[in-house]
Amino acid sequence: MLTIYGMSDSGNCYKVKLAAQQLGVAYRWVEVDSTKGETRTREFLARNPNGKVPTLELEDGSFLPESNAILHYLADGSALLPAGRMERARVLQWMFFEQYSHEPYVAVARFILYYLPPDSPRRAELPRLHERGYQALSVMEQHLAREPFFAAQKYTIADIALYAYTHCAADGGFDLARYPAVKAWLARVEQQPRFVRMG
Amino acid sequence: MLTIYGMSDSGNCYKVKLAAQQLGVAYRWVEVDSTKGETRTREFLARNPNGKVPTLELEDGSFLPESNAILHYLADGSALLPAGRMERARVLQWMFFEQYSHEPYVAVARFILYYLPPDSPRRAELPRLHERGYQALSVMEQHLAREPFFAAQKYTIADIALYAYTHCAADGGFDLARYPAVKAWLARVEQQPRFVRMG
Repeated sequence: MLTIYGMSDSGNCYKVKLAAQQLGVAYRWVEVDSTKGETRTREFLARNPNGKVPTLELEDGSFLPESNAILHYLADGSALLPAGRMERARVLQWMFFEQYSHEPYVAVARFILYYLPPDSPRRAELPRLHERGYQALSVMEQHLAREPFFAAQKYTIADIALYAYTHCAADGGFDLARYPAVKAWLARVEQQPRFVRMG
Repeated sequence: MLTIYGMSDSGNCYKVKLAAQQLGVAYRWVEVDSTKGETRTREFLARNPNGKVPTLELEDGSFLPESNAILHYLADGSALLPAGRMERARVLQWMFFEQYSHEPYVAVARFILYYLPPDSPRRAELPRLHERGYQALSVMEQHLAREPFFAAQKYTIADIALYAYTHCAADGGFDLARYPAVKAWLARVEQQPRFVRMG
């Protein structure tokens, strides 16, 4: 059986849980709290030298880190990852967009407001995080005004990757009212078979 | 013929040029200087609403952004991207590591020192960028002390993705002398058939 090392209220970890549930993959969940230093222990660094969750342990005892690489591994050969060359590239386009242009702003703003104390000096980062996060949401809005999902006109792991931190963007101080197409897409994701909520 | 919109001294754009050369793919290169605002024009935003190079234009007139998604598209079906499910996930593991844990530090330090004036206030970011960039280089060193390449024991697009900004890390003030396995790997990449330098 697969083991997922993850933190239940992390969007990156939730991605893996959601995909595993929707694919009907059996797994064991091991809670690892990065806010308590549990990803920086010698034991955990032996699993992932980059010290991050989620990390997947495979049946042969090897480890696979990086949420979006795990999604790709789990979904390969399923309806959540189309097989065509361009369709796969489109799925990856949005997954790289998520990790480079969305997560570092939308998820980090949430981290600051959700996990750090109200007097944290990191609150000074919020204006820039909001500016960049809204840029990412605008790119998504523009796409979703024309297409129902991010790639291949259907629900894929690109949607799972982007849903993870978009659905809880309000935790980071983002107002989604300006993004009706994003809100309609969030609802479409929540209607997918075997959908589970974060947490 | 494919068209690559890119900036010649950007590592993200160089990745695409290097892969296209090594794959023997014919392309037209259109120089776009993001430091002069050329990725934020109405015309360019119609190609990539996220306003970034590289962006690939396909023969049917559609556009594919995100350097690592472009690498995946170009290399699909070639020796640069192995076909096995776990091998592909390993290639992607390192490509997501590159975009999340390496490029935002190693490339951004280079951007500040290489493109901005010596009195730029952004130089204040350098200590944190160096700390995080060295963390990424240490993760690479640990892997490369045991393996010749990042995935599948052979040269793949994961190596191209990580070579792009590692080979010019000194531009960002990084000293690679502490990373002998990384240096030996850089030399191995440079010995690959049809290798071309950045620029």
